[in-house]
Amino acid sequence: MPIALELRAERLNPALADPGLEVMNFLNEVAMRFPQAISFAPGRPQEQHFELAAALPYIERFIREADLRPLHRADRHGIDALGQYGRTNGIIGSLIARLLQRDDNIVAGESDIVVTVGAQEGMCLCLSTLCGGPNDVALTIDPAYIGISGAAKLLGVRVAGVPCSTTGVDLDALGNTVAELARRDLRARVLYICSDHANPTGLTLSMQERARLLQAAADLDLIVIEDGAYSYFCYDGKPLPPLKSMPGGERVVYLGSFAKSIFPGLRLGFVVADQTVVRANGQTCTLADEMSKAKSLLTVNTSPIMQALVGGLLLAHDCTLREFVQPRVRAIQASRDAMLAALEARIPRDPEGHRAISWGHPSGGFFLAITMPRPIGNDDLLACASRYGVTWTPMSYFRLDALPSRQIRLSFSYVTPSEATEGVDRLARWTQSAFG
Amino acid sequence: MPIALELRAERLNPALADPGLEVMNFLNEVAMRFPQAISFAPGRPQEQHFELAAALPYIERFIREADLRPLHRADRHGIDALGQYGRTNGIIGSLIARLLQRDDNIVAGESDIVVTVGAQEGMCLCLSTLCGGPNDVALTIDPAYIGISGAAKLLGVRVAGVPCSTTGVDLDALGNTVAELARRDLRARVLYICSDHANPTGLTLSMQERARLLQAAADLDLIVIEDGAYSYFCYDGKPLPPLKSMPGGERVVYLGSFAKSIFPGLRLGFVVADQTVVRANGQTCTLADEMSKAKSLLTVNTSPIMQALVGGLLLAHDCTLREFVQPRVRAIQASRDAMLAALEARIPRDPEGHRAISWGHPSGGFFLAITMPRPIGNDDLLACASRYGVTWTPMSYFRLDALPSRQIRLSFSYVTPSEATEGVDRLARWTQSAFG
Repeated sequence: MPIALELRAERLNPALADPGLEVMNFLNEVAMRFPQAISFAPGRPQEQHFELAAALPYIERFIREADLRPLHRADRHGIDALGQYGRTNGIIGSLIARLLQRDDNIVAGESDIVVTVGAQEGMCLCLSTLCGGPNDVALTIDPAYIGISGAAKLLGVRVAGVPCSTTGVDLDALGNTVAELARRDLRARVLYICSDHANPTGLTLSMQERARLLQAAADLDLIVIEDGAYSYFCYDGKPLPPLKSMPGGERVVYLGSFAKSIFPGLRLGFVVADQTVVRANGQTCTLADEMSKAKSLLTVNTSPIMQALVGGLLLAHDCTLREFVQPRVRAIQASRDAMLAALEARIPRDPEGHRAISWGHPSGGFFLAITMPRPIGNDDLLACASRYGVTWTPMSYFRLDALPSRQIRLSFSYVTPSEATEGVDRLARWTQSAFG
Repeated sequence: MPIALELRAERLNPALADPGLEVMNFLNEVAMRFPQAISFAPGRPQEQHFELAAALPYIERFIREADLRPLHRADRHGIDALGQYGRTNGIIGSLIARLLQRDDNIVAGESDIVVTVGAQEGMCLCLSTLCGGPNDVALTIDPAYIGISGAAKLLGVRVAGVPCSTTGVDLDALGNTVAELARRDLRARVLYICSDHANPTGLTLSMQERARLLQAAADLDLIVIEDGAYSYFCYDGKPLPPLKSMPGGERVVYLGSFAKSIFPGLRLGFVVADQTVVRANGQTCTLADEMSKAKSLLTVNTSPIMQALVGGLLLAHDCTLREFVQPRVRAIQASRDAMLAALEARIPRDPEGHRAISWGHPSGGFFLAITMPRPIGNDDLLACASRYGVTWTPMSYFRLDALPSRQIRLSFSYVTPSEATEGVDRLARWTQSAFG
């Protein structure tokens, strides 16, 4: 065995010791200790819909149908051009532009789009590009997807949270936060939000709240980072338009992901950054062009082979995924319905008909929030997993301040309807023992 | 057309306006303006060796031969497990460990390895993990691969250069720099080096210089980041052992890449970080474990499908690539030989037998440095490209201070031997007109 050098953790980036990053280890530990538990923890899509064996040939379809020459200037090598370093911002931008127009009514050109290693890299690009000054602050809805606050901490970007109701952002709090930061000589630059079926709360902005948020962003000179990860997963009513497609959408940077609509193993997402950057010398480029410099230093470019798979699939489906995603949308909707029905059936009412435990009714997405009678911690999770065989995620994990929360997050994306029913039954038995 | 929002460049990360990042745009511009020029600029491997159509089936080979169940805990879905989010640090760590042992005599376990989105992400992981404090400084050989200094600037990590001869690092300058930084309350944490056939200079450390560098790193408490990108591309004599495999190698973090040995479009590399991290509570983990937290926030994980391609190829070649890479090693060696022969033939001597222009004789890699009689700038490059039809890269692009340099970098990796000969002929004619 080679000798190991010992490094004190204090020598490493202090962000790595952040409790917000440690919680994922705890979740993994719980999953490993109780492999038989029904898990409402992972926010994953179900493998049965990936059909990987059928998807790999899309690589060849793209090679056959797409004109690779202008992409690589390597006309002497045909298919092998896909193995080369490629354009930093990607080779399927024009197909993604067509997809955005057809499925989301977002108008963008190839030069506005950065193809990224998942939406996660897109978040890093937004933060490193738009919040690179020492006094710049990234705002995020709070609680929020851990990837945005974690990336900010890792990159040394200050981050502040903005509370939300179930249908909108607390715009008074937003204004107060921006003003309070300004008094400390700090500038709020961006606001991260998932406008449809947000992880972890299930928040979906109403039409009115969308318009109000865009107006507030203009008033406060904020760039809105809109995460469209769950946009296809709408179960009730018609999907609402992304902020990016609305009047005022010019100050929105849109993050797209193929992890849920195709599969996560692609590691493929994109950023729409059509803002015009004006240099000191008067020259202009798109914000996507500026992001390409940052991307070249994070990952050089996104695998052209994985881009070809998505490109071939888009070509085969005429650049719309609305029909393509229906089987998985319906499957997850069935699990949501089973979970909601089980909650309704198993969570008791008191003699006056009130419940001590309440829950959200998300119109889409992967997640549902339950509010318990008291703050919930790791001990509760361990007790519920070991004695009742069901796991979930304390909402405190997604809070910027990591303080205890009465809420927990249930994911219904990675369970069957019968697992959802059985899991809620176990959860209800735990709540009876825990809260009486 | 949607309205575009205008952003002043001053609002963006100032690193994006760094001249070191702008030069790549200039190089691309030159390449686009003079598409017929012979280009000694790109440090790329040649597509003819990629054999992508033959490589894609390795994905299926990996699926057949590797046991995916413990990797994903998704035994119900077989091949589709590859489409899921995977282990952050990757699923082919044990195969890479075997490869390192067979080809480089580096001893590492799966838990020491992070599979990355190319070596570039590995650099970001090293910088963000090891240089995360406000007073931390990354040292790099200077001139160096632009990806390390650029990533440092993007991530807000201070960076300082250390000069090198053709066979070693200037250890006096290294010691002085560390001491000078310490006087300013700054701590040099890491030293980036490519010990074999470095980009851009062709530097290869001699055996003696390797041992001296490791001793200096121990004396100065530096972690050495060793970039092994060109380790297979040794043309003269036997390959020298990587620093990581030598006594003292415990303070080396090793960056590996499959971009040159297989192909770049994989976007696949790895980090060997076997150091032990001791937390305040006494718990220990590997540095690779700590890096996984950072990786989860940059890219979540590396595409399991691209990992499967590499994994299948490694399984098929019994975890050694030494034979596999021979055709491409021999091809690039032939181009190097042609370039050296042409320089010898075309660069004139004065009556005393001296030359005003000199060049290195790299024992491997992709690059050769030429020293001109005076500093070389963009105007020279434009003149040489437009009037003589050959392009290359001013060495100033790779200098931390971006100051003019008498050196230029020629890449021989992306030209045929006859292109190398013809290109040097054109270059020689330009030098005659430029320097008389």
